[in-house]
Amino acid sequence: MPPAKPIIRVTVWSEFRHEKKNPKVAAHYPQGMHQTIAEALGKHADLAVRTATLDEPDHGLTDEVLDQTDVLTWWGHMAHGEVSDAIVAKVRTRVLEGMGLIVLHSGHYSKIFKALMGDTCSLTWREATDKERLWVVNPAHPIVQGIGPYFEIPAEEMYGEPFGIPTPDELIFISWFTGGEVFRSGATWRRGNGNIFYFRPGHETYPTYHHPQVQLVIANGVRWAFSGLRIKDTCLNAKALEPLPVDPEANARSNTGHK
Amino acid sequence: MPPAKPIIRVTVWSEFRHEKKNPKVAAHYPQGMHQTIAEALGKHADLAVRTATLDEPDHGLTDEVLDQTDVLTWWGHMAHGEVSDAIVAKVRTRVLEGMGLIVLHSGHYSKIFKALMGDTCSLTWREATDKERLWVVNPAHPIVQGIGPYFEIPAEEMYGEPFGIPTPDELIFISWFTGGEVFRSGATWRRGNGNIFYFRPGHETYPTYHHPQVQLVIANGVRWAFSGLRIKDTCLNAKALEPLPVDPEANARSNTGHK
Amino acid sequence: MPPAKPIIRVTVWSEFRHEKKNPKVAAHYPQGMHQTIAEALGKHADLAVRTATLDEPDHGLTDEVLDQTDVLTWWGHMAHGEVSDAIVAKVRTRVLEGMGLIVLHSGHYSKIFKALMGDTCSLTWREATDKERLWVVNPAHPIVQGIGPYFEIPAEEMYGEPFGIPTPDELIFISWFTGGEVFRSGATWRRGNGNIFYFRPGHETYPTYHHPQVQLVIANGVRWAFSGLRIKDTCLNAKALEPLPVDPEANARSNTGHK
Amino acid sequence: MPPAKPIIRVTVWSEFRHEKKNPKVAAHYPQGMHQTIAEALGKHADLAVRTATLDEPDHGLTDEVLDQTDVLTWWGHMAHGEVSDAIVAKVRTRVLEGMGLIVLHSGHYSKIFKALMGDTCSLTWREATDKERLWVVNPAHPIVQGIGPYFEIPAEEMYGEPFGIPTPDELIFISWFTGGEVFRSGATWRRGNGNIFYFRPGHETYPTYHHPQVQLVIANGVRWAFSGLRIKDTCLNAKALEPLPVDPEANARSNTGHK
Repeated sequence: MPPAKPIIRVTVWSEFRHEKKNPKVAAHYPQGMHQTIAEALGKHADLAVRTATLDEPDHGLTDEVLDQTDVLTWWGHMAHGEVSDAIVAKVRTRVLEGMGLIVLHSGHYSKIFKALMGDTCSLTWREATDKERLWVVNPAHPIVQGIGPYFEIPAEEMYGEPFGIPTPDELIFISWFTGGEVFRSGATWRRGNGNIFYFRPGHETYPTYHHPQVQLVIANGVRWAFSGLRIKDTCLNAKALEPLPVDPEANARSNTGHK
Repeated sequence: MPPAKPIIRVTVWSEFRHEKKNPKVAAHYPQGMHQTIAEALGKHADLAVRTATLDEPDHGLTDEVLDQTDVLTWWGHMAHGEVSDAIVAKVRTRVLEGMGLIVLHSGHYSKIFKALMGDTCSLTWREATDKERLWVVNPAHPIVQGIGPYFEIPAEEMYGEPFGIPTPDELIFISWFTGGEVFRSGATWRRGNGNIFYFRPGHETYPTYHHPQVQLVIANGVRWAFSGLRIKDTCLNAKALEPLPVDPEANARSNTGHK
Repeated sequence: MPPAKPIIRVTVWSEFRHEKKNPKVAAHYPQGMHQTIAEALGKHADLAVRTATLDEPDHGLTDEVLDQTDVLTWWGHMAHGEVSDAIVAKVRTRVLEGMGLIVLHSGHYSKIFKALMGDTCSLTWREATDKERLWVVNPAHPIVQGIGPYFEIPAEEMYGEPFGIPTPDELIFISWFTGGEVFRSGATWRRGNGNIFYFRPGHETYPTYHHPQVQLVIANGVRWAFSGLRIKDTCLNAKALEPLPVDPEANARSNTGHK
Repeated sequence: MPPAKPIIRVTVWSEFRHEKKNPKVAAHYPQGMHQTIAEALGKHADLAVRTATLDEPDHGLTDEVLDQTDVLTWWGHMAHGEVSDAIVAKVRTRVLEGMGLIVLHSGHYSKIFKALMGDTCSLTWREATDKERLWVVNPAHPIVQGIGPYFEIPAEEMYGEPFGIPTPDELIFISWFTGGEVFRSGATWRRGNGNIFYFRPGHETYPTYHHPQVQLVIANGVRWAFSGLRIKDTCLNAKALEPLPVDPEANARSNTGHK
């Protein structure tokens, strides 16, 4: 009998500011976007979910919470600058050790995503009446299982190319927008031991995180990003190896066989 | 004083069948698509251009022609199956040795492209009233210099994802189509020593190869694909190295310094 | 309670010729290399293993067997040319539909690997007294879990760069050899829906497939390559979409917002 | 007659500290490593070379110098922490706009390389009697033209895997060391519009930058990294597009042709 799948501990992080200031946002997410995302993930038997938000102490990301987080999801927008550099540094270290990271929508400009990408992370955008159609360009990838060739979001903010990101390890989705733009809306990278998935949808003024296929992609993304690892020594710190004994003839041995 | 740029010898290959059978195609390309492409390339002082077509002996791709070809462009559609396997094998060998290859539009299903990709090379398509807008997703790439953030073709056949290709070494263009589709319409790979660029536009019933920005991309692509190489021995054939003298102690020397 | 992991059906394919002809090989593998590999995989509760060899009817790869194979491992060397093109075509189709493929050692020159890579697949080699030390360059990858920073094989055939392969999607191992060579000895690619893992060790005159870490890497590779997919229509065949109704104004709608 | 190649303006940056403190280093580089590198580059008719060092005002990297730099080479080691964050930010911006960057040896831990990679950039090392043999794994790449299948440095510091870098866009060299290690010693990435090449050799206590093949690789690297670009607006800053007029029917137009 095969072993059971592991339980994955997920922390859903969000700014939770727009919801308090903008009635339009609050109408979609009265308890905050993080609650909607957390509830959707919590329906899966293999996911154990908690939430954390900007205005909690340590933004809700204490050492204890991070120690118990296998995968972190991140939504931020208006208050990127208020996220403490010390917390960003901790989260970055944890990603490099093996924690998975799902970056959502305007999180493309978060401190943590920019620090891990090393690139501009810029894009073009427009808030209008666009429909977004997300095409799957990597049909065998675990993140798109259960999604057909594409899925649609009836109204969303438009994000357009050029998206200032390093070449993704894997490109998953490309979005089409009514107004004439395209965007690499799902992509993955590895940094240190950490798996990172960027997923575009989720502007605060639309009910996007109630969309069943958006929820499915995030759940699949969490499972994909899970490594179970916390490797501190092989990747984070340069390591001096013990000196070799001096052997002037050792180098000569590789000289045969080549011309 | 810096040296001059090299002259690049280009062979523009085309089926040249649709033009003879379909008046709609002949109206755009009375001398054949290859002539339109060759004339556009020939305006550049560093490109020396010839053409070759399916119905010439050896499809116009004799050893002499291939020996004098630095970069080959390929357009085919209705007669992929009539291209001789022996000629395809020769072209493939020449690419692996270092000849550049530009595959155009329906060439995605040519024998040579499929042989070099090892993938399905499939896609979806529709011939209708679509406009194609090609977005540059790699703005610093040599192939898109002189192109702005995007360019448009007023009417083209639609090609849609999923495009059954290996992960590109470089993704250059993503196309938007009026009807709601996207496509990775410019991408590069290296096989052996050969640089390969796939460029989507160019359905025979539209005047696409008269479009100045399509012409510029092809010229840029030729320069990018040029390697000047013809390396026969390092990549094509496995090579046995001379035996090493038996030295039972040699392996032990790498045992220090690691635990 | 989380669901159980799926059972993965593995078919271990091998030429099974050297073992019959060369007593040195038979001494290591009296029942054939495939039996040694199959027994090692069979110890894992989530793997259901069968074998197939060249001299069985259809090389042991009937439609029925392929229909029940989630992941295929492939070892061949002296008889690549005797593998039927029809069987190779079937295996290739099955990989493109989603079957995983693990290519071992001299399988780099098998028809199936060359067809899927589209490259030369060439390398240099030497049979001597080399030790092989395989360094993990992707420590978080599932294929290397349980392997430390590196592992060693006391004596192996040397394979050296340049290895004529497309840029791997993921590079897993780089080997060091006593005689002065290096080799990308573990690498992955996706073709269609199929995950492919090439793993270098396994020359027939050494007891390599009895090595516990080689066995672990192959088991990890099988789990990594498993997709559970058999998708016939999205990737294998180009598909025409239904015509759009003519709408001369549709294209104009994307003209706003850009300059 | 084809046009002449462009003149490339190179700035060779170095810490220039070890040379002043350690007689062993000064013996190899009495004027500093930067002078040796600059002299080697200056022999090429298409390269116009200047130098800059840590202890000059603004580390020698004033706005005027950066404005006139197409490609920057970077060597640092003992004083990474003394490089001003403001200068690093300027250099990073200039790379993202299109300046090429060649990072040498211990520059793997420089602020600028770490900022652009977003990864640990860690490795293992040992200063001993190792010979380094650098194997070319990408024989058609412009950076290795004129280099054979490999070249050797008789004595160098060892750097070993795992090297904590993002998946390279292109892998160029893999090094073999006498003591039993391997290393991805030549690799490229693009960030924004800037081409980045990391090249491993060059420990200060060895005469590595006098080695003719090391010099050739750096010159080839400079030419490869040159883009001629200084694009400020497409990649660096997110851009809002003009609002689209409200058109409730526009989204409906993409609904035909798909099911």
